[in-house]
Amino acid sequence: MSRWLCTPLTETLGCRYPIVQTAMGWVADANLVIATTRAGGFGFLAGATIAADALEGEINKVIAATGGSNFGLNFHMFQENAAQCVDLAIRYRLRAVSYGRGPDKQTIARFKAAGVLCIPTVGALKHALKAVELGADMITIQGGEGGGHTGGVPSSILLPQVLAAVSVPVIAAGGYSTGRGLAGALAAGAVGIAMGTRFLMTRDSPTPSSTLVHYLKVNDPQRVRVTTAVDGMRHRMIENPFINRLEQAGPFGRLRIALRSAWKWKQQTGMSLSHLFGVLRQALKEDPGALSQTVMAANQPVLLQRSMIDGVPDEGILPSGQVAAAIGELKSCQQVIEEIAQEAERCLDALLARRSEHQPAERWRTPS
Amino acid sequence: MSRWLCTPLTETLGCRYPIVQTAMGWVADANLVIATTRAGGFGFLAGATIAADALEGEINKVIAATGGSNFGLNFHMFQENAAQCVDLAIRYRLRAVSYGRGPDKQTIARFKAAGVLCIPTVGALKHALKAVELGADMITIQGGEGGGHTGGVPSSILLPQVLAAVSVPVIAAGGYSTGRGLAGALAAGAVGIAMGTRFLMTRDSPTPSSTLVHYLKVNDPQRVRVTTAVDGMRHRMIENPFINRLEQAGPFGRLRIALRSAWKWKQQTGMSLSHLFGVLRQALKEDPGALSQTVMAANQPVLLQRSMIDGVPDEGILPSGQVAAAIGELKSCQQVIEEIAQEAERCLDALLARRSEHQPAERWRTPS
Repeated sequence: MSRWLCTPLTETLGCRYPIVQTAMGWVADANLVIATTRAGGFGFLAGATIAADALEGEINKVIAATGGSNFGLNFHMFQENAAQCVDLAIRYRLRAVSYGRGPDKQTIARFKAAGVLCIPTVGALKHALKAVELGADMITIQGGEGGGHTGGVPSSILLPQVLAAVSVPVIAAGGYSTGRGLAGALAAGAVGIAMGTRFLMTRDSPTPSSTLVHYLKVNDPQRVRVTTAVDGMRHRMIENPFINRLEQAGPFGRLRIALRSAWKWKQQTGMSLSHLFGVLRQALKEDPGALSQTVMAANQPVLLQRSMIDGVPDEGILPSGQVAAAIGELKSCQQVIEEIAQEAERCLDALLARRSEHQPAERWRTPS
Repeated sequence: MSRWLCTPLTETLGCRYPIVQTAMGWVADANLVIATTRAGGFGFLAGATIAADALEGEINKVIAATGGSNFGLNFHMFQENAAQCVDLAIRYRLRAVSYGRGPDKQTIARFKAAGVLCIPTVGALKHALKAVELGADMITIQGGEGGGHTGGVPSSILLPQVLAAVSVPVIAAGGYSTGRGLAGALAAGAVGIAMGTRFLMTRDSPTPSSTLVHYLKVNDPQRVRVTTAVDGMRHRMIENPFINRLEQAGPFGRLRIALRSAWKWKQQTGMSLSHLFGVLRQALKEDPGALSQTVMAANQPVLLQRSMIDGVPDEGILPSGQVAAAIGELKSCQQVIEEIAQEAERCLDALLARRSEHQPAERWRTPS
């Protein structure tokens, strides 16, 4: 291993390469995390879409396969089993947790006491500052070109902004899939890169091939676009018939689509009618637009499931970073990680070699 | 000067730092290019908005002030005095020309014979490949976060894509304003960075302070957004009353706005009625939407002039990269360039120092 790639990330997270596999709903399962860990990267389990009664089993599966708890768990504080996620991460002394809108100071203190590192993901400078104030150990910045819920600041701008403002280590995400990208992030001052889409598009990904075809086929980054139609928040995904229909529908049309989807959700999850109506009743205080958004937000696991589990991509959503348009091939996690590491080393070796060739010169005098 | 910053760009273009000031209409005048050159960067004159009878004077002004023709000229092949631009660049042996949709192979051959380097700007991989095929000596990639006419591929994705595909030196643009950005671009394999917005927002910029206030005030990158309302092409600018009005107007509303603006244009330029009607007659073969776009495209110099010369930002357009939102201070070109160079050196020194601290270790064995 080259010394270029030893960073505070590899040292603190205890992995071979400064490459993180982010948690993607229905994608980042135990098998993907195992493949990432074995290849020398650091993986996060997608705690938000793993059923509560399966979560401990998934954690144990990774531990059994990799010989330790050197991986992370992602969760949202607003999910039903958030407390369970916190407890399990602490009980199993997982190396790290990641989250968006994060846990409170008390919960973060519990993680710290247990030695579980807190690595929130942020999409704007002010959120980075807030996350550090709350006690983040590291920060993942996600440029707006990233997939799923994402901000509006591209990596090229967000990364230098956050690096200049915080003193905790920063991981760069949003737009990364190459060793050149890793080399650039390290040179800018980041401690590594995090990638979702690149890991989703591997042979270790559980994503059905009928869905992966869409990810492989997209080659115009503008077709991997932001919509707010699903839940009112910026959400980047590959354009498909479902999302076009949702965007063209008015507020009531969206509500109808949302309710139909909610009904499927109820049927699939065995959720009680009273819980479903509780969600709707809460939302009914709002206008139809907001109601449809609330229902749709609650539906996201179902919409994701249609594409990511059932393999019916036209009826679900296809969260993706724009970088999908630059990826044309499925590889194993190991290939992905090793190729990126090797390319990054070549880039940095070349930079150093060029520097060594040159003598400091007074050749370019400033014109008077 | 550190050896980190000696690159094929500084060697070929003959400047001290691998930092290019791009041509911005009504902004990149002789004074800005002189300030850039004196500070050790490489500047391009905005040949597209300098009046034909003033162009040679501007070129001579830079030569007189900097003691040589070590700068560039930007032009568009579709502008009225394109042939004059080509002739002047060759006659004065300017170091380089830049352009978007470029000159043909014959013209490029003339540049090459005269030793004038061709450095087109591209926003997509396929355009980079085409530009190289036509004979480009270097390529500037502009990520979609860049200002003015811009593509839809962010720098984080476009730069590695183009670097992997072409063998000519690549300059990175779109989102850059810091030394961290420069260090990252160099590590990824670029030979330097090009910036527009950062130079527009300097004390050497001719932009009126009434307009610069808008650039300084914007701090949400999403308010520096792409519109196609001006001429049908992707154009990134700061949101203002004019652009909001234009977007909300229907095709006929846009035509009315365009015609009113065209009339001002005619008055200001002393253009003959027959030329104006010629433009309109040509456009009338199209539908009203296309007509308004044609007229509006022809109006762009006027729209720019309102904000960039007259200092009436609400009645013109404010082309800008999203990076404006991360820039809060006007500095001189010299400060901008030196601070970026020094920060880049610090970043790369730190990277090298970290590497030297580490011994190659077999510490992270792959879990079996």
